[in-house]
Amino acid sequence: MAGAVSSRGCQKIRGSQIRDLIDSKHSVLFDCDGVIWNGEKVVAGATEVVSLLKRRGKNVFFVTNNCTRPREKYVQKFSRLGFADVAQEEIFSSAYCSALYLRDVAKVQEGKVFVIGGDGVYEELRDAGVPFVEGDVDDSGMTIVDCPLEADVKAVLVGYDDKLSFLKLAKACCYLQNGECLFLATDPDPWHLLREGRVTPGSGSLTAALETATGRKATVIGKPSRFMFECIASQFGVDPAQSLMVGDRLETDILFGANCGMETLLTLTGVSTLQEAQGYKDSDAPDKKDYVPDYVVDSIADFLPLLEDDD
Amino acid sequence: MAGAVSSRGCQKIRGSQIRDLIDSKHSVLFDCDGVIWNGEKVVAGATEVVSLLKRRGKNVFFVTNNCTRPREKYVQKFSRLGFADVAQEEIFSSAYCSALYLRDVAKVQEGKVFVIGGDGVYEELRDAGVPFVEGDVDDSGMTIVDCPLEADVKAVLVGYDDKLSFLKLAKACCYLQNGECLFLATDPDPWHLLREGRVTPGSGSLTAALETATGRKATVIGKPSRFMFECIASQFGVDPAQSLMVGDRLETDILFGANCGMETLLTLTGVSTLQEAQGYKDSDAPDKKDYVPDYVVDSIADFLPLLEDDD
Repeated sequence: MAGAVSSRGCQKIRGSQIRDLIDSKHSVLFDCDGVIWNGEKVVAGATEVVSLLKRRGKNVFFVTNNCTRPREKYVQKFSRLGFADVAQEEIFSSAYCSALYLRDVAKVQEGKVFVIGGDGVYEELRDAGVPFVEGDVDDSGMTIVDCPLEADVKAVLVGYDDKLSFLKLAKACCYLQNGECLFLATDPDPWHLLREGRVTPGSGSLTAALETATGRKATVIGKPSRFMFECIASQFGVDPAQSLMVGDRLETDILFGANCGMETLLTLTGVSTLQEAQGYKDSDAPDKKDYVPDYVVDSIADFLPLLEDDD
Repeated sequence: MAGAVSSRGCQKIRGSQIRDLIDSKHSVLFDCDGVIWNGEKVVAGATEVVSLLKRRGKNVFFVTNNCTRPREKYVQKFSRLGFADVAQEEIFSSAYCSALYLRDVAKVQEGKVFVIGGDGVYEELRDAGVPFVEGDVDDSGMTIVDCPLEADVKAVLVGYDDKLSFLKLAKACCYLQNGECLFLATDPDPWHLLREGRVTPGSGSLTAALETATGRKATVIGKPSRFMFECIASQFGVDPAQSLMVGDRLETDILFGANCGMETLLTLTGVSTLQEAQGYKDSDAPDKKDYVPDYVVDSIADFLPLLEDDD
């Protein structure tokens, strides 16, 4: 029985296997970076795959931990890269879902959110009607002892912030001394690879600094937490059993799919490799099995011939 | 037997018990903040205790995780607070010991150290002849993709830095991509309490951000690591069995004493309480026993009558 369990997963599929899989689902959820595009370079065939899935009547959603852009900027990016038919309501970013969490779950309308983050977070909070403290005020020359703090901060939200300063971190620590102040993170991504081999700390890194400084654990909105799927499900009535999660990172995308009860497909155009997936599959640790994708393709372009067949 | 073990420790001592303890030691190591002073306020009796210990022929050392001042500033602080006879060579700060580690253990003279930290760290590195990259260059407006990186960075050293910026963190991440670049932290302190109830992230918090971003673990120089004791022992030939560690924090000072094979004394003028010490003592977890001080006093002023008796 243990042998039967461990032989599941990591199935490299092609041809009619891909068609059967797609035919069995109503919805396909795509991660963006490493799946649909890499930076400003679209993955070959991705625009056609999205169009064809929609023509076959599938719901298509984009689920990204990237919190730096508001959704309208994602719509522009999709359009710029040649996607003719991606609508704002199909895009679920960690910034958007964090705003939904603060509005609908935490209901902080009567207080303010202190934000470590950028325009993506600010604009989504504004759209959702969630009041927030502008984090980028000019407090140069001030220290945490002499700078003013807001009286009614009910939550601290931490996301990627390339304008992070020590004072912002210290302010967050002060607000989080109040145990009733919520502690949220847009996403757990530890780092990001940029051009020229340069790397930056991700939201998860900044969150770790605050977790250590406060002795508290943040509630994480982005993948692999279930909350972004709950946002999609509540707006579109999506059934996880009829949904496929397509991603390039085992520790976020594939685990997210497993956490939400979806079948999962790893595409090899991004971060994780087939060897890593196989490593998790061969591992004896039971907590690693949710990192194993059900299916693997080289690229979502592998969907293409099968979808085109029907036309 | 288990009962006998768990009954050891947390012994509140006074009178002749204190004298017997002091008489049995050649050296007394004091943490500073919470033991000798609190901020700019000296603990009552501390100046006399230090003088009297020295008059009785004891070695006295000050062992602090605070990396913000060079040792000469500590000498000035001791003098300002009324200590007439504290010499620079008796002071072991995490900044000084980090410089010693880089010079004597890591031997990075042929490369440079990238520093997240402040003047305390810079001046100790300068004194030790360890080359470093000035972290506070004006790179405003630059991003990690377009800012220059030094070619010969052999170590990243992270300490308390109230001028921390995102770019400094990102540069450290880039240097640490090279697995041969050492990753050091001055100390593990997670946070510091300032005036007016304000708090700031400590070195440990900034280190946690980089550990998450790089997937690496830092080598920590400060307490509870043994390295600061090794610095003292190598310069003064101190025997841990004949040394007493006096501190106010169970998780740093008392654990440091235990790690180095010293007897330990908790003073209640700082962070940790007798209840917390008792809690560790009553805990069944074997890894908690090193947080239990051997002895407890209300204040190091309790040493005073006994030391004076002899004069």
